Amino acid sequence: MDKPGEIGGGVAARGGTALCLGCGGPLLCDIQDQTAQGSLYMVQRGPLSGITIVDLSRILAGPYCTLLMAELGARVIKVEPPGQGDDARHYGPFRNGKSAYFSSVNRGKESIALDLKSPEGRDIFERLLDKADALVENFRPGTMEKLGYGWDTLHSRYPRLVYAAASGFGHTGPYSHYPAYDMVVQGLGGVMSITGHPGMPLTRIGTSIGDLGGGLFTAIALNAALLHRERTGEATKIDVSLFDCQLALLENAIVRYTTTGEIPGPMGARHPSITPFEAFATADGNIIIAAGNDGLFVKLAQALGRPDLAENPLFKTNPLRNQHQEALKAEIESVLRKAGTGDWIKVLEAAGVPCGPVNNIAQAIAHPQAAARNMLVEVDDPTMGSLKLAGNPMKVSAFPDPTSRAPAPDLDGDRERILRELGL
Amino acid sequence: MDKPGEIGGGVAARGGTALCLGCGGPLLCDIQDQTAQGSLYMVQRGPLSGITIVDLSRILAGPYCTLLMAELGARVIKVEPPGQGDDARHYGPFRNGKSAYFSSVNRGKESIALDLKSPEGRDIFERLLDKADALVENFRPGTMEKLGYGWDTLHSRYPRLVYAAASGFGHTGPYSHYPAYDMVVQGLGGVMSITGHPGMPLTRIGTSIGDLGGGLFTAIALNAALLHRERTGEATKIDVSLFDCQLALLENAIVRYTTTGEIPGPMGARHPSITPFEAFATADGNIIIAAGNDGLFVKLAQALGRPDLAENPLFKTNPLRNQHQEALKAEIESVLRKAGTGDWIKVLEAAGVPCGPVNNIAQAIAHPQAAARNMLVEVDDPTMGSLKLAGNPMKVSAFPDPTSRAPAPDLDGDRERILRELGL
Repeated sequence: MDKPGEIGGGVAARGGTALCLGCGGPLLCDIQDQTAQGSLYMVQRGPLSGITIVDLSRILAGPYCTLLMAELGARVIKVEPPGQGDDARHYGPFRNGKSAYFSSVNRGKESIALDLKSPEGRDIFERLLDKADALVENFRPGTMEKLGYGWDTLHSRYPRLVYAAASGFGHTGPYSHYPAYDMVVQGLGGVMSITGHPGMPLTRIGTSIGDLGGGLFTAIALNAALLHRERTGEATKIDVSLFDCQLALLENAIVRYTTTGEIPGPMGARHPSITPFEAFATADGNIIIAAGNDGLFVKLAQALGRPDLAENPLFKTNPLRNQHQEALKAEIESVLRKAGTGDWIKVLEAAGVPCGPVNNIAQAIAHPQAAARNMLVEVDDPTMGSLKLAGNPMKVSAFPDPTSRAPAPDLDGDRERILRELGL
Repeated sequence: MDKPGEIGGGVAARGGTALCLGCGGPLLCDIQDQTAQGSLYMVQRGPLSGITIVDLSRILAGPYCTLLMAELGARVIKVEPPGQGDDARHYGPFRNGKSAYFSSVNRGKESIALDLKSPEGRDIFERLLDKADALVENFRPGTMEKLGYGWDTLHSRYPRLVYAAASGFGHTGPYSHYPAYDMVVQGLGGVMSITGHPGMPLTRIGTSIGDLGGGLFTAIALNAALLHRERTGEATKIDVSLFDCQLALLENAIVRYTTTGEIPGPMGARHPSITPFEAFATADGNIIIAAGNDGLFVKLAQALGRPDLAENPLFKTNPLRNQHQEALKAEIESVLRKAGTGDWIKVLEAAGVPCGPVNNIAQAIAHPQAAARNMLVEVDDPTMGSLKLAGNPMKVSAFPDPTSRAPAPDLDGDRERILRELGL
């Protein structure tokens, strides 16, 4: 058993570091885990250390799942089609001809290009599966079967292999075989219908919540399935649909509709069932105030110099405040307009009222808490130079959270070492 | 070892069903798992069967995490303050005086009300921890320490207990002690700055992505930590910050900014770096088309009866299409305006081009794929009657995905049985 905080050399295989595909020991056979020495080959350590994932996924949903697995310590070997590789290698922004987009979701992974229709490619792929704990893919349903790698085949040949599939509509149901990308499921799943302002043009959620949602749920289920396998020996197949995930992320919108019969619509910048919980105008911009319970509302009223608001029978409880939301907003803004956002944030923070500005991306990543929590990590890419990417939000004690990460692999960039590990 | 598909009775403890806190065997000692008989006490089976979670969390981020754990088979025992209980019990919509909102994120859990400042409450709580695999909470940092249950204390007294904390800003850093709710981190984390239309009013993401993001990342890390404990015996503390999670969900926005120096802004209903990937006007509404690569763009051009678009040197590659996005949109809409959304969806689906309507909530849950994938489950609540809630998007082979779920517990509703299990 590894001691936490200790790197690689000489420790037992489990829970320590990435494993050599050949000897099964820590990946030290010829490329050492040299994080401390600043080598380009870095193995993130974490609760998934010792887990090896073969990753056929591309673009965003699957790669985001395996990015999170890598951040938690898994070794992720990306198997890409020769020539083009993952489609995301061709999405901007680019630097020195390389995709920074691709780097942002594939840092810290390895790459080998294999033609899964050729005997040689299949042979290597199957040797990889033989050593792997899990296979992740986000092809359209049926693709793996056409390749001869459907779940039944995989499960009988590799009985310990966990198989996670993320697809637009899942592996069952009448829409299973339709293609879907992020924006399609954002539209189909309803979140676009409750985002924005009534009567104004449609808006996409600014981040690809369709794909990211799929990646997140796949990672949760994959870790649960790895635990189940560890405890019982049984490997399972995970079937996640991006569309299903959108429904699961609708939170209270479904229950609002199924309980009241009213179809929820966009509500601008406020919460549908908590008040005050919205953006307000100040003298020089906006402030978000989220007074999620009666106690916080009292604190807010006091901090605004309007303790009467908390005594007002129209505003005594959250249901009443929901009912009189516009009147309350007018009262609050009449005070807030007397000073700027920065001043109000100081006042409300001192009073313990949850509040904040609406940051742009530059401001968000410059927030002092982002630096303190190591949420902007550095990748030293041999082609692109230094890149700043989002860090890992899952801080797990007993594991380091380094300030740099290994770069995304070049297409087929790890072929030679992987083949050596496999004894080829 | 359990056989998959078999319920409770007589099987070994691990990986099978919920465990009795007293005898450690399947929870059969006095309240049997009677799912098949339609009893109110239902234990969801899944890859986390046999895992017991003590859940101090409230409102949304923590409860969403433990909802997902319960959906995967964990037994979740909600420990609530006597009297009021979880704040979310008082959020609408209500039916027969009970919160449907609360039910939507707490179905299938158990509840016991304990005053953690009283000796009796602490005694019961500590007996629960003694039997639990994990503790989840989303208090403000420092609260657990004040109660005498900080990580160091917990870890030395319960060395196998995994501890997951989700808080607004995390347990470290200068903002650690500030309160934060969903909308505050939506604003601080930057996603609101890239959602909506340039020059139009701010909009919240219509679902509480601040809280849900925190719940999702906590669930991923918690499952990874449970696997690590299973493999090495070492329990760890997980420290997730809602703000960190927002940064981790910004996807390409961070890398666009750090690579190009340009601050990303809202872009309406289109993808920032893939074209065409947006909402288009038709004769009677909108359609989303997501042609994520050159092959799909060729199919789209052909399906529109405009194969020339794919030959046009302005539109040959994705970088070129990004550059000429407005011109391409005008070309595409000039065709799309000749028919309605429904007709175009048939044409484009037949051509294999990812596309879809913008559904409202009623349409989203009425989609045939939602029923086929069991994404709307029924809860038969003794007070509220039948509720329809979002199902589980994580389909794991070897486990059933029942069409109904146990209701959310009444406050303290499981006290008697839990105390009996504990021998009190």
